[in-house]
Amino acid sequence: MKQIQVGLIGFGTVGRGLAQTLYEQKDRLLRKVGAEVVLAQVADTSAESLPEQFSDVKLTKDANEIFANPDIDIVVELIGGMEPARTFVLEAINHGKHVVTANKALLSVHGKEIFEAAVANNVEVGFEASVGGGIPVIKSLKEGLVANRINSIMGIMNGTANYILTKMTDHGVPFDEVLKDAQEQGFAEADPAYDVEGIDTTHKLAILMTIAYGKHVHLDDINTEGISNIKPIDIEFAREFGCRIKLLAISRHHGEYLEARVHPTMVPTSHMLANINGAYNAIHFNGDTVGNVLLYGLGAGMMPTGSAVAADVVDIGRNILCSSVNRVPALSYLPENIGSPKISPMSELTCPYYFRITALDKPGVLATIAGIFNKHAISIKSVIQKSRHELDPVSIVILSHTANEAAVQASIAEIDALDVCTEKTVKIRILTDDE
Amino acid sequence: MKQIQVGLIGFGTVGRGLAQTLYEQKDRLLRKVGAEVVLAQVADTSAESLPEQFSDVKLTKDANEIFANPDIDIVVELIGGMEPARTFVLEAINHGKHVVTANKALLSVHGKEIFEAAVANNVEVGFEASVGGGIPVIKSLKEGLVANRINSIMGIMNGTANYILTKMTDHGVPFDEVLKDAQEQGFAEADPAYDVEGIDTTHKLAILMTIAYGKHVHLDDINTEGISNIKPIDIEFAREFGCRIKLLAISRHHGEYLEARVHPTMVPTSHMLANINGAYNAIHFNGDTVGNVLLYGLGAGMMPTGSAVAADVVDIGRNILCSSVNRVPALSYLPENIGSPKISPMSELTCPYYFRITALDKPGVLATIAGIFNKHAISIKSVIQKSRHELDPVSIVILSHTANEAAVQASIAEIDALDVCTEKTVKIRILTDDE
Repeated sequence: MKQIQVGLIGFGTVGRGLAQTLYEQKDRLLRKVGAEVVLAQVADTSAESLPEQFSDVKLTKDANEIFANPDIDIVVELIGGMEPARTFVLEAINHGKHVVTANKALLSVHGKEIFEAAVANNVEVGFEASVGGGIPVIKSLKEGLVANRINSIMGIMNGTANYILTKMTDHGVPFDEVLKDAQEQGFAEADPAYDVEGIDTTHKLAILMTIAYGKHVHLDDINTEGISNIKPIDIEFAREFGCRIKLLAISRHHGEYLEARVHPTMVPTSHMLANINGAYNAIHFNGDTVGNVLLYGLGAGMMPTGSAVAADVVDIGRNILCSSVNRVPALSYLPENIGSPKISPMSELTCPYYFRITALDKPGVLATIAGIFNKHAISIKSVIQKSRHELDPVSIVILSHTANEAAVQASIAEIDALDVCTEKTVKIRILTDDE
Repeated sequence: MKQIQVGLIGFGTVGRGLAQTLYEQKDRLLRKVGAEVVLAQVADTSAESLPEQFSDVKLTKDANEIFANPDIDIVVELIGGMEPARTFVLEAINHGKHVVTANKALLSVHGKEIFEAAVANNVEVGFEASVGGGIPVIKSLKEGLVANRINSIMGIMNGTANYILTKMTDHGVPFDEVLKDAQEQGFAEADPAYDVEGIDTTHKLAILMTIAYGKHVHLDDINTEGISNIKPIDIEFAREFGCRIKLLAISRHHGEYLEARVHPTMVPTSHMLANINGAYNAIHFNGDTVGNVLLYGLGAGMMPTGSAVAADVVDIGRNILCSSVNRVPALSYLPENIGSPKISPMSELTCPYYFRITALDKPGVLATIAGIFNKHAISIKSVIQKSRHELDPVSIVILSHTANEAAVQASIAEIDALDVCTEKTVKIRILTDDE
């Protein structure tokens, strides 16, 4: 019986998900692949033993034992973070092992180094699980949409942030309360910054852009804003305007330049992305041949991520069995055809905007604000002023027509410097119907 | 320069879409695959010449010239229908050519014969474009979800039917009018039966079931009902019940047995499938590892279908270049592991139902109908009787709790036999929230 032997580094939630998947799907994979996919060894610094069904699996605290194990074909890195993950992945590659990882943070920062090392050692790097959890988004983009220029990528790529926004939308609960609830339920990390400040979404967008456009996109290339300053009142206004607020990753391909941004966005309810709720993720591509495609599923979790990691293991396993390693280039384009991106500056962005300005309710305030917008050539579409209690600051909500980001930032700086403004102005970019 | 040479049979809409895709994406494919993907020859019985950009492409009226052309690696069949498509596909296979086809009708009837011939001749058969147009659904199911038992398949797989239902829903226009409009716009065929009677959807479900479950599912295994008897009044009632009517393909995996049906369905608006509008398709899988996954895009059309056909051509081309033909079995499971399906009889289905009974407005009618349902152990959830003009027949709409299909059919037979009933009762099955 032919075998594909897997060494797993990290027996946390996702690691256990992979182990369980390979255990439960053993017969099915045999009937599809014609070979056994075997979890041979696990390296974990804290696990003292493995659950009973894995009694045949060797356990070590030292990942080097996996690199040195000549039987192991594929090393799966599921510890996450930068170090020692980076060292482990490079060590595995240097030992001639194929690598599968779900580590979006690592790839969005050290991807270039890792993929170049893989090419030099003629091994594969699979990373389906790094974006969209169990959704086969990387394979679809690299292979299913191979005959497309990707014009745009838009997505909801962080389940925790989407869960929080969904709860805020459905129940009117403030951000802090929902976050606390999500943390208690184990959805959100103790340090939620990666999820709610958009950083995790940015990691994922960098990976998708790299594949979609054939450019090494780095985390730092993407403008990132989170959802922690979104208030229930913003969600209420969004509803009045026929929108829902979502944390979107957005990238567009303009000639030579790439647009790349992650931020809360008002999405018209008629748009598919407005209707992605709870912990689900969805990634929307526009390709010049295929038109619009959207892929939807659970963006995280033990078993969905296990499904994606197992798919990578099988994919590489098939290449080992067929001697067709690197049959599909890791980053879609052949390594020699991948260049550096030119990112269009955020200041050049144009779109409609929502502004919530908090100011004392004094005569002339609105005229002053309107004057500032006018000076910066921002055309106002509508103004709503809610609840009028004397002396209390009021929320002045302004929707603009399509405006320029640089002008918007200059306007906000002037508005926030007004004596009557008591809080920083919140701006939310609006997705138009046809996007 | 390495080349993959393609012979195309059929230069209709989809054929031209493939030709244009390979032409427009030539450089992109070269930068990804490292080889030229070349349209070498076209066979079409009616084309007298090819557009100017294809001046290097040989044109013939005789498909046999393509089979006999030793330079051609892959034959793409895009004429559709049963014959001569079946003969051409088998001839190509017997000549040792790989085949790509978008022909769902052919595969759902003659798939077993074709795939067995391909195995015997060690060639590949690609059919991504046969389901969901440009959506990479076949690849996702075979590869992305490889480590899953597929528990269920649900989908909107016919853009014409979905376009008609969407128009009826949004504008309250009767079926016949929307159909006529769709035909005039070129969306719907002159003979719309395949689209509106669910046959095309059934073809596609048979293909997905075969791959998902590893059983040779035939068109005849699937219970098929169309949308031609849906009236605006049904759509109005659906709206009142928080649902939209969609033509769904539904299959579930119950132990040894497979459920398989295509029919109009009331889908709660909270469900993703209720929000797939116009000519779009969406296919929803539930896998035991991954949970719910949905894939969305244009289910038909020249370029989306061209995108999927080109993806198959590239996939097979890569296997030719790497000498890894049949690296992934055509039907996901290895040929020796594919069996015959056991289909659970439609009579065993249980779900909630919507009934629209047309009867004369006479005393005691409702009591009689309620008595019939009661006799067959069908529990009524609600009754609505609309508009009461004396002598005119009225529409009595009844929602049932979960009921058994055999009992439903027996009840309808009795109800329709009543003297007071003036039209055949319309039943629409209801999808529950958790499905």
